[in-house]
Amino acid sequence: MLKKLKRFLIGRPLKNEAAGDEKYGILWGLPILASDAISSVAYAGQEMLMVLIPAVGMAAYAQVSYISLAIIGLLILLMLSYRQTIENYPNGGGAYLVAKDNLGVLPGVIAGAALSVDYILTVAVSISSGVEQITSAYAPLKKYAVIICVAVVLLLMIGNLRGVRESSKVFGIPAYAFIIAMLSMIVVGFIRLKMGYVPTPPPTVKTIVKPISIILMLKAFSSGCTALTGVEAVSNAVPNFKEPSTKNAKTVLLLLSIIILTLFGGTSILANYYPVDPDNGAVLIQIAEMIFGRNFMFIYITATTFIILVMAANTAYAGFPLLIAVMAKDGYVPRQLSMKGDRLSYSNGIIVLSAVATFLIVLFKANVSSLIGLYAIGVFISFTLSQSGMFVRWMKYKGSYWVGKALINGVGALVTAIAVGIIAWAKFHEGAWIVVVLIPIMVFAMLKVKKHYIAVAKQLRFRPEELMAINVERDVYRNRVIVPIDSVNKSSVRALRYARTISDNVVAFNVSIDAESGERIQEKYAMLKTDIPLIVKYSPFRKVVEPLLKFIESAEYEYQKGDMITVILPKFETKSWWHKMLHNNSRIFIESELLKHKHIVVAVMPLQLKDDNYVLKNPKYN
Amino acid sequence: MLKKLKRFLIGRPLKNEAAGDEKYGILWGLPILASDAISSVAYAGQEMLMVLIPAVGMAAYAQVSYISLAIIGLLILLMLSYRQTIENYPNGGGAYLVAKDNLGVLPGVIAGAALSVDYILTVAVSISSGVEQITSAYAPLKKYAVIICVAVVLLLMIGNLRGVRESSKVFGIPAYAFIIAMLSMIVVGFIRLKMGYVPTPPPTVKTIVKPISIILMLKAFSSGCTALTGVEAVSNAVPNFKEPSTKNAKTVLLLLSIIILTLFGGTSILANYYPVDPDNGAVLIQIAEMIFGRNFMFIYITATTFIILVMAANTAYAGFPLLIAVMAKDGYVPRQLSMKGDRLSYSNGIIVLSAVATFLIVLFKANVSSLIGLYAIGVFISFTLSQSGMFVRWMKYKGSYWVGKALINGVGALVTAIAVGIIAWAKFHEGAWIVVVLIPIMVFAMLKVKKHYIAVAKQLRFRPEELMAINVERDVYRNRVIVPIDSVNKSSVRALRYARTISDNVVAFNVSIDAESGERIQEKYAMLKTDIPLIVKYSPFRKVVEPLLKFIESAEYEYQKGDMITVILPKFETKSWWHKMLHNNSRIFIESELLKHKHIVVAVMPLQLKDDNYVLKNPKYN
Repeated sequence: MLKKLKRFLIGRPLKNEAAGDEKYGILWGLPILASDAISSVAYAGQEMLMVLIPAVGMAAYAQVSYISLAIIGLLILLMLSYRQTIENYPNGGGAYLVAKDNLGVLPGVIAGAALSVDYILTVAVSISSGVEQITSAYAPLKKYAVIICVAVVLLLMIGNLRGVRESSKVFGIPAYAFIIAMLSMIVVGFIRLKMGYVPTPPPTVKTIVKPISIILMLKAFSSGCTALTGVEAVSNAVPNFKEPSTKNAKTVLLLLSIIILTLFGGTSILANYYPVDPDNGAVLIQIAEMIFGRNFMFIYITATTFIILVMAANTAYAGFPLLIAVMAKDGYVPRQLSMKGDRLSYSNGIIVLSAVATFLIVLFKANVSSLIGLYAIGVFISFTLSQSGMFVRWMKYKGSYWVGKALINGVGALVTAIAVGIIAWAKFHEGAWIVVVLIPIMVFAMLKVKKHYIAVAKQLRFRPEELMAINVERDVYRNRVIVPIDSVNKSSVRALRYARTISDNVVAFNVSIDAESGERIQEKYAMLKTDIPLIVKYSPFRKVVEPLLKFIESAEYEYQKGDMITVILPKFETKSWWHKMLHNNSRIFIESELLKHKHIVVAVMPLQLKDDNYVLKNPKYN
Repeated sequence: MLKKLKRFLIGRPLKNEAAGDEKYGILWGLPILASDAISSVAYAGQEMLMVLIPAVGMAAYAQVSYISLAIIGLLILLMLSYRQTIENYPNGGGAYLVAKDNLGVLPGVIAGAALSVDYILTVAVSISSGVEQITSAYAPLKKYAVIICVAVVLLLMIGNLRGVRESSKVFGIPAYAFIIAMLSMIVVGFIRLKMGYVPTPPPTVKTIVKPISIILMLKAFSSGCTALTGVEAVSNAVPNFKEPSTKNAKTVLLLLSIIILTLFGGTSILANYYPVDPDNGAVLIQIAEMIFGRNFMFIYITATTFIILVMAANTAYAGFPLLIAVMAKDGYVPRQLSMKGDRLSYSNGIIVLSAVATFLIVLFKANVSSLIGLYAIGVFISFTLSQSGMFVRWMKYKGSYWVGKALINGVGALVTAIAVGIIAWAKFHEGAWIVVVLIPIMVFAMLKVKKHYIAVAKQLRFRPEELMAINVERDVYRNRVIVPIDSVNKSSVRALRYARTISDNVVAFNVSIDAESGERIQEKYAMLKTDIPLIVKYSPFRKVVEPLLKFIESAEYEYQKGDMITVILPKFETKSWWHKMLHNNSRIFIESELLKHKHIVVAVMPLQLKDDNYVLKNPKYN
């Protein structure tokens, strides 16, 4: 039944060969990769206002326009930088790969850790903001915000477990719908102004005549930098594009930058003329209400803004599992994260992403302003490392026009490095410290994981001369079997038969609590008339493992170095899930205790239990 | 390290022979078994007041005295009844055993289910009430009530996992201290009244002149019946007494009844002269403050009341695991609950009891009045069944003075049956419905468990002629081995050597994703120069289990009915807990999938991994 539910939710498994079909062109690649960046229109400006309004009141709106200009400059620089990255790395991998390739392991792992944090926060921030749009348009939902957020994460998880291609189609059309929504809002907004409409400023925002401080500007700038998260998604996902993938990716990146520039710039200027108080709800929704009133367009804008933010989270679902799988293949995160799931998506990564994002949403009560403090720093660290890597690469390999190209990446690296410093410093108390502490811990853990895998590989590896010296047929073990039995029944006799199959050196082993029960089993065992001896031990601790190990070590057993002892443990296979709880508890314990000894193999022998009603009604068993 | 912590908390394991020492005499048996009953002084009267005060105001205090009289009558009847039970059941087992023995399986299981519910509620109610005493004396703690309750449950759990004898010593002395506290409060209270002290009635309780309704009286009576829970603990625990255990148990029961009578009666009368509002906190603590003021005696009474309530919970820790273990031995609850733990206490039962009680405390926010609605009904059901059982027993076996004895048990059964009806009816909406619904569900589940164990036993059982027909040496299987390998390394070669040890029919099996990696492993495998063939399959699903099962079923493998296939899976044994997470994930999945097939045995071969640093520093591995 669980399997059926899984199939219904996740769909049929796809074959390996189907992987080629799962890639996307410009038309679908743009919305699925662009949504993170363009959706930040919904919160980046708003969060800047929330920093500035308490200090400078109405003057904040103008300041936001100036800061937005700086951010747009940064965007153009990043776009140029990343086009060069795409060209040089047609197999994708993004900052992690570029940094590892050109700067070494440590910078690569730092970039990987930083990006992972960023992806998780993209999900948390985007969905929290998306739900905020809805609750701003329809206030009674406000108290269910956290629950709605968690439900959306769940839906995204299921959608992505179904596979990449379907994600892009399901989530593709609304991305264009959002772009149309924003453009019409900007156009209609300016037309209404031209026609003489004078919006009334919000009474809750005062006019404060006070010079703005540098630290405030930098705080606002840090909040605004969240508009740029998502730009790197395109270069990470180059191999997800249809051929020619490099060209398609570069085109998508260019289109993406133009769209961000238009929407982010346009709404920033618009906010100057339609000032609203961000404390009253999502800024975009309030502006939409002022321009359109509560009509169809208002609903359309609310809906598409919500959906584009959900798609932004979906960008992380496209990027994070890919990144983690690449790092898992390199051995920096547990190997099981590199395994592809049923529908060719990286199921484990998808589940981890959903779980951590849900945790953050619940922890910060789906409050965008609380989450925004943690955001952006991760992605700017990876920007810096990626651009630095590209800069080093040009210096090393040169090539045509390399000086100009190196200059672009070098300036990119420098500017984003400065931004990292600004964000870490300005937002330290607002949550950036969490990321500043977390990333080194993650890097440490990743290096430890890698070290472990290297140590394991070294232990398992043969040198050529060792491999040649092996003779499997000659190097067999002296083979001995022990069959622990509770009583003489079909299960234990089956185990004895199997034991006799694999060895001539078998003993049956029983632990009894008192002499009486010991004698009883010996009597019954004698009826078997087998030449396998039965050893009965009395356990003062009522345990099986200790007496068994003691017996193996005792002179009685004559254990010799190099003997391999197989212990046979029956396992009851039951039909229903709750029957499982009624069996096998002691087997699991005994198995894990015995396996701590390298000369003991545990052979688990399944015994299929028949349905209770079948047995009780069948005269054969009565 | 975890083991060390366990040893520190739970103590060294005890030997079987030490079990005799773990029993208790009258001196320690009285406090450990009596505390449930005598501690109800702290809440039974108070809960009656909380029912009556809103309806009749000041008149409630007098009414409580009358109802208490009825409850004391019930107590004497129960005491007489249970003395007869103790005499007839020197091996204990209480209501479950008596009902099963004389009335049949169903009444026995009902009694067992009802008692289990009662034990759990004893822990939840007693600890919630205990902490209420503390928070009534020191109000700032009120907001931490739930956390304190959970901490106390945890401490009790650890204490009881350490073993019975130590529990009785640790918790013995304060039980006497509480009796002294209550007696001095009653004595000093009456002396102060004689000396002319006139307590002022609480201003919040009004004088309402209104006839009291029958339903209210019955509700108050139902709350008061909680005073009688715990009386059955003595008869359940007869075998825990030192020899002569029957006589010791009867003496303890008599002493217990006298103490309850004195304390419950005394405090009920006292409350008439020192009226307080139960809404302001625990009644006992308020009365103590009126009599003594906030001096040493006040602290002494608060502390001993708290401690006796904790001990009441401890009564359940003595009784519940014993009951569950008896039922587990009979097969009505999962067998693992019958296993004794390290320190001869029934660890699993103790842990289950703690977990469910904690759940209830958190669910009902440690509110005694909320929990009290669920309480008492369980224990009165078991009273009824136990007394009915005894009545039927007298009718059947007769014996000296049997008519009188039958009369006592018969009246006992009738009166307690009426009480069950009253409690279920009067408290239905206050939570009794939960128990009314829960007990049938538990009974149903217990009967299903029993049915399953019977069906399993029938499947495993040999008839004598079957047993005689077995010849283990003749009935061996045709033995074949498959060794799944990922690559040629020390782990897979070790598995091949073991495979060759147990069989001459071995194949190595590899699942590759593409032809390239398939060829690579074949080349390396060829260097082994073994006669074991390597089968390489390509998996479109990237899974191991499906191709392996398909191979077994294919003509290529020539599987014949009766062949037993051993699949060897290496398991990495790691030194640190976090390394475990980096391995074995796919092995666990493959193992459980393969074991669904009765002709497949999974042999788990441990491979001890060495410490990372040791390997990396050792030139042998480099």
